[in-house]
Amino acid sequence: MQHRAQQQKHHPRGKRGDAPARLWLYGRHAVAAALANPDRRMRRVVATKNAADWLADQQDLQIDRDRLAKTEDARPDAIDALLPAGAVHQGLAAEVFDLPRARLKEVCQPDGANRPVLVLDQITDPQNIGAIFRSAAAFGARAVIVQERRTPPLAGALAKAAAGAIETVPCVKAVNIARSIEALKALGYVTAGLAGDAAEDITILEKDAPIALVVGAEGAGLRALVAETCDMLVRIPIAPAMESLNVSTATAIALYEITHGRGGGK
Amino acid sequence: MQHRAQQQKHHPRGKRGDAPARLWLYGRHAVAAALANPDRRMRRVVATKNAADWLADQQDLQIDRDRLAKTEDARPDAIDALLPAGAVHQGLAAEVFDLPRARLKEVCQPDGANRPVLVLDQITDPQNIGAIFRSAAAFGARAVIVQERRTPPLAGALAKAAAGAIETVPCVKAVNIARSIEALKALGYVTAGLAGDAAEDITILEKDAPIALVVGAEGAGLRALVAETCDMLVRIPIAPAMESLNVSTATAIALYEITHGRGGGK
Repeated sequence: MQHRAQQQKHHPRGKRGDAPARLWLYGRHAVAAALANPDRRMRRVVATKNAADWLADQQDLQIDRDRLAKTEDARPDAIDALLPAGAVHQGLAAEVFDLPRARLKEVCQPDGANRPVLVLDQITDPQNIGAIFRSAAAFGARAVIVQERRTPPLAGALAKAAAGAIETVPCVKAVNIARSIEALKALGYVTAGLAGDAAEDITILEKDAPIALVVGAEGAGLRALVAETCDMLVRIPIAPAMESLNVSTATAIALYEITHGRGGGK
Repeated sequence: MQHRAQQQKHHPRGKRGDAPARLWLYGRHAVAAALANPDRRMRRVVATKNAADWLADQQDLQIDRDRLAKTEDARPDAIDALLPAGAVHQGLAAEVFDLPRARLKEVCQPDGANRPVLVLDQITDPQNIGAIFRSAAAFGARAVIVQERRTPPLAGALAKAAAGAIETVPCVKAVNIARSIEALKALGYVTAGLAGDAAEDITILEKDAPIALVVGAEGAGLRALVAETCDMLVRIPIAPAMESLNVSTATAIALYEITHGRGGGK
């Protein structure tokens, strides 16, 4: 067991064919949502007395009773010791396995409600990715598509910023983002890249087709091939005094704009 | 001097009547914007060779040549040593004095363009406050009003998240938020509190008067007295699957909604 634990430590993300990687979630909303997700396999859950009481009160989440019963009591400093320095765990942490893989053609199949899909091109900041998941859930996005190789694990600070949304919004881990955009076109999506210097205002997007919104990293923006693959590029109009919006802010505004007044986000 | 430096360390925010507090800014956009702000008194600026080259290239910012010339060369680890652990300084940091106080009746005087004002009620998270400043600049807000007693210094991680916006958007530090809302009403603002459980959708806001948007902390929301003082409460419609938006995300969406199609944010 000692040997296995060390292997896990040195290969925390796992590899194809290996056992699934183990990850830590922390923070009340992140862990409660994981407990409420039947697809989320969990290894252990540790909670302070206060956090366990809070969990027991979350009737809306319909958390499995058996899972709750297995929660281990812990003092805050014992939870600190399990997590990276400075992790604000709010008395609740869970060691979990990664979620089952989501497939683009299954989770992005249009359903008539024109719910959008998000495609993240080279966004690597965990806080931004987590915040984007939270907004995706708030505006009824079907899925978030990321590039497998460049994306941090959906856990830790990312999961905390997502406030439970990684449990409800499917994440497709793609090998190639341009090919994912082509696959979304084939499913009937209008693919729109968000770019600060685009000629067109985001309000030109028609609301009678599902939209796949493609977002690049702050600073670098969309890669050339990804931008060329999109049906169109659109911008959120901002004052000249500011160079750009934060990427998760821009994504949230775009989701609001394209879902407001439709079925998806209301 | 040794004694004075220690005093500063133990009273970093300064007190009325004391010398102004000294603060550290770090990150390329935060420091470049401070250098370009003639109202920002600076004590020292330290930069790596790469960062100094980048600064010299920022023609758009019209940074005072004398200030640039005084920048001290430093290695990254020497800058690390000046800042809190983990500060991502990008090779650039500045020890500065707080900006001069902004007065509500001066900076919020309506100018005919109906630019909005933001009022933050008990928001204490530096990242969120910084992100709100960045969006305030992007959507042409007149000012951000905060409660002096509960707000962290406009420096460090807050200033980094603001990406320079604390240099361009005036910050009014108020003793009493409800009284500030009354003062904004007297100036002709429609005061709208953002609340997830409000009956009215934010789109009901008329676009022919300046709007003061009042935002509370995540979780707690607006305090009762503050909510009662607002002319109306409005919500951003979100899917039932998500309990709430991140507060800086919600603020950005609200700013987009109330400025889009008017003079302020375009």
